[in-house]
Amino acid sequence: MRIGILGTGVVGQTIGTKLVTLGHEVKMGSRAAGNAKAAGWVKAAARGASAGTFADAASFGEIMFNCTSGMASLDALRQAGPKNLDGKVLVDVANPLDFSKGMPPTLSVCNTDSLGEQIQRELPMARVVKSLNTVSAMVMVDPAIVPGDHAIYVCGNDTAAKAQVTDLLEKSFGWKTVIDLGDISAARATEMLLALWIRLMGTIKSPKFNFVVSRAP
Amino acid sequence: MRIGILGTGVVGQTIGTKLVTLGHEVKMGSRAAGNAKAAGWVKAAARGASAGTFADAASFGEIMFNCTSGMASLDALRQAGPKNLDGKVLVDVANPLDFSKGMPPTLSVCNTDSLGEQIQRELPMARVVKSLNTVSAMVMVDPAIVPGDHAIYVCGNDTAAKAQVTDLLEKSFGWKTVIDLGDISAARATEMLLALWIRLMGTIKSPKFNFVVSRAP
Repeated sequence: MRIGILGTGVVGQTIGTKLVTLGHEVKMGSRAAGNAKAAGWVKAAARGASAGTFADAASFGEIMFNCTSGMASLDALRQAGPKNLDGKVLVDVANPLDFSKGMPPTLSVCNTDSLGEQIQRELPMARVVKSLNTVSAMVMVDPAIVPGDHAIYVCGNDTAAKAQVTDLLEKSFGWKTVIDLGDISAARATEMLLALWIRLMGTIKSPKFNFVVSRAP
Repeated sequence: MRIGILGTGVVGQTIGTKLVTLGHEVKMGSRAAGNAKAAGWVKAAARGASAGTFADAASFGEIMFNCTSGMASLDALRQAGPKNLDGKVLVDVANPLDFSKGMPPTLSVCNTDSLGEQIQRELPMARVVKSLNTVSAMVMVDPAIVPGDHAIYVCGNDTAAKAQVTDLLEKSFGWKTVIDLGDISAARATEMLLALWIRLMGTIKSPKFNFVVSRAP
């Protein structure tokens, strides 16, 4: 399958590498063609990796991953070209973390809105599925490094899109527990979890953790 | 020990009942003396239960639990009388849930502030410890009903107060994993977790669940 990735950071590179390793063709998009991080990733990754602009990646991909930093996501998606994204599944992995006021970061949007909802409003014809934003990049594509039956969440307005992403998470990335939280407004919940995630990372001193949802019988 | 509880709802009643069962003297405070819910609780609870105003409970207790609804907490604490709370450990169990805009509720404060911090600012001489606000009342006092090594959090500015609350959580309530998230500003993290908690309760269709923090070895 042809997959487009927006963003050249650790998350985009980690997901991109996993996907080419699985045999997919992956184009990594960035603000301008010739991005050094994207070029380095293409060089290091397996056959099937390529790079271009946001618009190049968006027109290439049958499925898209938004791995840009949350504060830059809307701008990146506008550059990608809404028409290039029409009807496509767009997995939104970004978190609207605002580091401008120091550590720990705050969220630039939360509580009564979310980045996931902003993206869906900006791209009404895209099929936005919020997922993977609650774990670090290495856990996203290799959940087995964390013990136990820990959970990943999906939410979005398009049921078929959520099913397709769930299938990818389970069969390609190895997730055993994928919890559907409902429509895209549930992105508020998973983005707001970042506040606790960041505090816990400070306590645990590692990003290699996740939450198991344990229920009474 | 003499313990004061502010609030007559399910959380206050559940914690109060647990504490009298453990042999403590507990006074439940409400806006006005003669509150019917408090009187019903006194009647049903074991020896050691009594009721009065917020101020009665605050002057009685050596340790205090704020179990009022979050939107009413600051007003209740003002009625309790800051002088009555000076130097005392105040376990803040409340969440600033705002149901006025429909379901799911939003938070009346979050992201750059929290109810826990508002309370600590309002009562600078009280030793505020935010805890227990991330689980339902029945799990608070009986964590064993949920399987696995699931976690409860404490945060606050007073290390000795956190140690005292941790001891109570472990030895009296039966918690096995108490995670210290740092100063009172970490209340943002645990209060913001409510967004996910509420969505999950809708999915699981039960409040009897909690999160296990699973770490890579």
